[in-house]
Amino acid sequence: MSWNSFGRVFRFTTWGESHGPALGAVVDGCPPGLPLGEADIQPWLDKRRPGTSRFTTQRQEPDRVRILSGVFEGKTTGTPISLSIENVDQRSKDYSEVALAYRPGHADYAYDAKYGFRDYRGGGRSSARETAARVAAGAVARIAIPEVRIRGYLVELGGDRIDPAAFDAAQIDANPFFCPDAAAAARWEEIMDRTRKAGSSVGAVVECVAEGVPAGWGAPLYAKLDSELASAMMSINAVKGVEIGDGFEAARLTGERNADPMRPGPDGKPVFLANHAGGIAGGIATGQPVVVRVALKPTSSILTPVETITREGEASDIRTKGRHDPCVGIRAVPVVEAMMALVLADQKLLHRAQTGR
Amino acid sequence: MSWNSFGRVFRFTTWGESHGPALGAVVDGCPPGLPLGEADIQPWLDKRRPGTSRFTTQRQEPDRVRILSGVFEGKTTGTPISLSIENVDQRSKDYSEVALAYRPGHADYAYDAKYGFRDYRGGGRSSARETAARVAAGAVARIAIPEVRIRGYLVELGGDRIDPAAFDAAQIDANPFFCPDAAAAARWEEIMDRTRKAGSSVGAVVECVAEGVPAGWGAPLYAKLDSELASAMMSINAVKGVEIGDGFEAARLTGERNADPMRPGPDGKPVFLANHAGGIAGGIATGQPVVVRVALKPTSSILTPVETITREGEASDIRTKGRHDPCVGIRAVPVVEAMMALVLADQKLLHRAQTGR
Amino acid sequence: MSWNSFGRVFRFTTWGESHGPALGAVVDGCPPGLPLGEADIQPWLDKRRPGTSRFTTQRQEPDRVRILSGVFEGKTTGTPISLSIENVDQRSKDYSEVALAYRPGHADYAYDAKYGFRDYRGGGRSSARETAARVAAGAVARIAIPEVRIRGYLVELGGDRIDPAAFDAAQIDANPFFCPDAAAAARWEEIMDRTRKAGSSVGAVVECVAEGVPAGWGAPLYAKLDSELASAMMSINAVKGVEIGDGFEAARLTGERNADPMRPGPDGKPVFLANHAGGIAGGIATGQPVVVRVALKPTSSILTPVETITREGEASDIRTKGRHDPCVGIRAVPVVEAMMALVLADQKLLHRAQTGR
Amino acid sequence: MSWNSFGRVFRFTTWGESHGPALGAVVDGCPPGLPLGEADIQPWLDKRRPGTSRFTTQRQEPDRVRILSGVFEGKTTGTPISLSIENVDQRSKDYSEVALAYRPGHADYAYDAKYGFRDYRGGGRSSARETAARVAAGAVARIAIPEVRIRGYLVELGGDRIDPAAFDAAQIDANPFFCPDAAAAARWEEIMDRTRKAGSSVGAVVECVAEGVPAGWGAPLYAKLDSELASAMMSINAVKGVEIGDGFEAARLTGERNADPMRPGPDGKPVFLANHAGGIAGGIATGQPVVVRVALKPTSSILTPVETITREGEASDIRTKGRHDPCVGIRAVPVVEAMMALVLADQKLLHRAQTGR
Repeated sequence: MSWNSFGRVFRFTTWGESHGPALGAVVDGCPPGLPLGEADIQPWLDKRRPGTSRFTTQRQEPDRVRILSGVFEGKTTGTPISLSIENVDQRSKDYSEVALAYRPGHADYAYDAKYGFRDYRGGGRSSARETAARVAAGAVARIAIPEVRIRGYLVELGGDRIDPAAFDAAQIDANPFFCPDAAAAARWEEIMDRTRKAGSSVGAVVECVAEGVPAGWGAPLYAKLDSELASAMMSINAVKGVEIGDGFEAARLTGERNADPMRPGPDGKPVFLANHAGGIAGGIATGQPVVVRVALKPTSSILTPVETITREGEASDIRTKGRHDPCVGIRAVPVVEAMMALVLADQKLLHRAQTGR
Repeated sequence: MSWNSFGRVFRFTTWGESHGPALGAVVDGCPPGLPLGEADIQPWLDKRRPGTSRFTTQRQEPDRVRILSGVFEGKTTGTPISLSIENVDQRSKDYSEVALAYRPGHADYAYDAKYGFRDYRGGGRSSARETAARVAAGAVARIAIPEVRIRGYLVELGGDRIDPAAFDAAQIDANPFFCPDAAAAARWEEIMDRTRKAGSSVGAVVECVAEGVPAGWGAPLYAKLDSELASAMMSINAVKGVEIGDGFEAARLTGERNADPMRPGPDGKPVFLANHAGGIAGGIATGQPVVVRVALKPTSSILTPVETITREGEASDIRTKGRHDPCVGIRAVPVVEAMMALVLADQKLLHRAQTGR
Repeated sequence: MSWNSFGRVFRFTTWGESHGPALGAVVDGCPPGLPLGEADIQPWLDKRRPGTSRFTTQRQEPDRVRILSGVFEGKTTGTPISLSIENVDQRSKDYSEVALAYRPGHADYAYDAKYGFRDYRGGGRSSARETAARVAAGAVARIAIPEVRIRGYLVELGGDRIDPAAFDAAQIDANPFFCPDAAAAARWEEIMDRTRKAGSSVGAVVECVAEGVPAGWGAPLYAKLDSELASAMMSINAVKGVEIGDGFEAARLTGERNADPMRPGPDGKPVFLANHAGGIAGGIATGQPVVVRVALKPTSSILTPVETITREGEASDIRTKGRHDPCVGIRAVPVVEAMMALVLADQKLLHRAQTGR
Repeated sequence: MSWNSFGRVFRFTTWGESHGPALGAVVDGCPPGLPLGEADIQPWLDKRRPGTSRFTTQRQEPDRVRILSGVFEGKTTGTPISLSIENVDQRSKDYSEVALAYRPGHADYAYDAKYGFRDYRGGGRSSARETAARVAAGAVARIAIPEVRIRGYLVELGGDRIDPAAFDAAQIDANPFFCPDAAAAARWEEIMDRTRKAGSSVGAVVECVAEGVPAGWGAPLYAKLDSELASAMMSINAVKGVEIGDGFEAARLTGERNADPMRPGPDGKPVFLANHAGGIAGGIATGQPVVVRVALKPTSSILTPVETITREGEASDIRTKGRHDPCVGIRAVPVVEAMMALVLADQKLLHRAQTGR
């Protein structure tokens, strides 16, 4: 099946291929009366845009968004918001070899197995270009949840972790890696230069924190806040793991160590003395920061030839030329943020549907 | 919102609280004509049943399943299958203290914040007893995917990992931990005895492998096979992390190391030389074994008092008496298997909806 | 496919066959904190219950409802509400002939064509007994929309219409036909006696009015209030037509005659000078009474033999013995009311999800 | 809520306002490998296009469709198909008065009551221009159900019915009314000329027949084929009633008269001796032609002033100038056909999801 919609009441649908004329998203269920213009969306697309440093793909895409519906006199009308982004820099000729043989680690073989054939130009629908549509939709979601602040950043690149003690939010936008640790950013520059020169690639871990999520958001049991976040994050290209709060580390703690003790707070709400749970209990937000961590595999497109087979089933090997990100994890940061916003907007609306609050 | 259904065409809905008269599941969309009786479901419930060893809760629940609809003359009719399990051993008196104060790590505070009040007896709806309904539904899913073999087991308990080289499938059912490594199982017995005596708890990591999943199952982009699995697993009580294939480890590999090279196979299908991807590319099954790993936090119910607040907002502390699993990860194994089966049954039907295969 | 759930945020799922041990509904998404007990549901089931007059089937079913989950200390908890009704008076032997040949007008052939076989006892899943589960679910929906008053009644039976000028709401519960016109009720008694003696059956038209629906409820474009009502009503057994407001008659009016002029009202809301639209414009409630009319065909079970074929494809003919309603339209009144309530509860929650009101 | 998607596995989402830059649809779940080009869609849009005779609105819209995704080398890829239609002939100045006062019969007041404000230009989202997107999506659905032939036509206009005995399929495209009865078409020309000159409007009844629908399609109980059709048709602008088969007339027949007797057919399938049921029993197709009838109210836009109120709540009256269809029922024919195709494509896929056939 093809399933290109996400969300339950605040919903979006994306469409478009890497080398088609355009791609886009339709956002439905957005509350009416919210101020929205293209200028509210473009900065997030710019953050994700390729070609902004030597560490990302050199494909040149302006990624200009157009709002085609759902906004009148500068405000959302409550009707579907159609967002469109033109594809400009398509070089279809780069992909002739890909038409014949499968690139290991890519979706090439799987799409053929599923659909019988595929649009091989730039990965077609399986291309990470689709994530531009998510970022655009996510920008709309952000305006629907003004009470929430979302911040994503890299905590690990090529196996090299940041020092949590050196965390400095101001650093995140001061380097091309969304890295909150200046020393780590310096090391990563070396790693990336080495990787790029070798025609190789590395993975990364993104962390994303949402502050201000009210206690009570979440829809147990099968649309739990953590379950929805896991689904949202795992749907991003190259993601292979998702953690909430302490994640796998929690499995190594005792019950005493993993507890998040509560104390009375100044405003009647509890103060938590720890946040191992990542802000979610029983699938419902506790009012603490919601913390998600996402593992991205190294880009599958590398210059080293890899053994593969052709569409005809013959042995071959393939080097992936073309213009690729040596670390897709970097540009995934705004995508992870967008998915966080989209999940939270949906949960906000679901919560007030049932409770009126 | 309350959201107690899962799946898109093969769907199930669960209901019931820990201390209500019963709990159950309604399975809808199951193919007709499949042989199904209570005897096909009961063994999976028995596997999850509490009180089978000294390492799990001593609550005595026979967990007898009844099929109330959807089966006629021993075969599924294609109409909804209602499954019901009576609650037998409810001791509501154990939970009086819980009514007044929040147990950190439990959903107590979050449910109150969401709904304004809660059924505090045994955790009410947030109790892990609900997973019995999933296991029953999962047993139905299994008969809908005879081509698939699913096997879950523990790879880590209390921070102690199995030795992959010592993996022996025959061991899994030979110890009370679903542990495939006999030496690890021996160590875990000690860990568990120590933990139980201390009134403490430990976490665990479950791995689950599905073999025989045909290449092509999966529904990109927002119902990707890995995305659905992440959602399914994260919806299980106490789960804080999900990995597909190499998971977070993939983020530490280079593109060369992470590749799954392909060779022509004897039957026209490719042979893969590795399975870092865990059997999924672009959200679609590749035909390799589908591999998921799930992290479960330590049980929040411990005998050590933890700082908390009361419903009235006053400082207090709470010890959780009652009968609890010192490691919820153990009994989670059949639950993880059930969720795997439920996701795959849904994807099988979705795939043939679109492609006719 | 089997699709036994209805609703988008206030949802219900029904299960059960005519001759199984029980049938039921799971209601999910209900707001928390609403007072609910079995005594709130039972009166609606009693209204639909068979065997209350000589004009309905003589099957004796007490239709006692049990609440199995989702209610604690007399209030809804916000978690799924499981409702169960035992089947008591099943006489499976009555249906042996039906196993072999198809009853024209029933779902027998269609179920066989779809599923390859069927539970032939009393129509199995296609039996109107399933509507008991809807009525139970509808009783829950009613408590979620206290601002709305719903009233259903028959406006036509066996082709004989009421006189709108003689409409008297007090009459509706004063005769066995939910007939608001005393003179018509007297005529219908004759029609029904004649029909019953002849072993024949007649159709009916139910009208249902919901007052107090706030302007603004409705979810354009594909979950319009009228669209949802049409879907809900057409899903009831034997229904073949649905009208909103003037319905088919509107197609015979000019634009001038069909207009619902508006005047300023005392409270700032408009006063409408007519209600041809049945309270809905553009799929959204206008604040006027919502008016639906539903056509029910005559019961297909009649004593006159009808030409048919057997499962083996041979010519035969069939008389439907057993205990049947000579006019299913009568007992459909509480079912139509229940579906109205269920649609409106869903729309109320959807509206406040998006707008916060 | 805003809900602009329809379908369960074969799904579409529409977007766009009457006076925005464009409108469109995203079709998801379409089977892969089907030949599809813009030339397969355009003829259906041309059939619905305004300005083709003096009996429809004189707004000039070429309604050129563009396929922006989901098709590669002339075949559907199985990924979302984005369809876009530019708005060309928008005269926003015509609608200044509408901004201030509500047009009775239109959605003006309801949209304001729901969303707090509205795009008043040409009805914004509530405009019948949206149906162009449905027709485009329906053209895609048609290629997914080659076994089915769909034919819509008018059976009544301004209260004047066709003579069923004079039914001649060849006439349908030979007059501007999709009228299968030449004599009726001649009368309707007079009715329409008179109506147009008076600045008035009339209603109509559309009948739509789908032949070749295999027995078994349909998804009981809450996605019954008739229930889905009712929902689909009632979602079309100006529709106030839906009938399946004999519809309301069935309520006036006895059980004997309403029966559809069955005889053994030459190919093992039954031959039905009548089709009162309109091809659907128990929500499942019987293999007979599926027959739907749809009532459309007269256009609300008329030249006669109608009493209304302003946004400020003051008494006023309004004449609707601008370019309007004196009978929206005429151009509704291709829209009804499209919705029929979309429902059937969805049901085809649902059926094979569950049964594999």
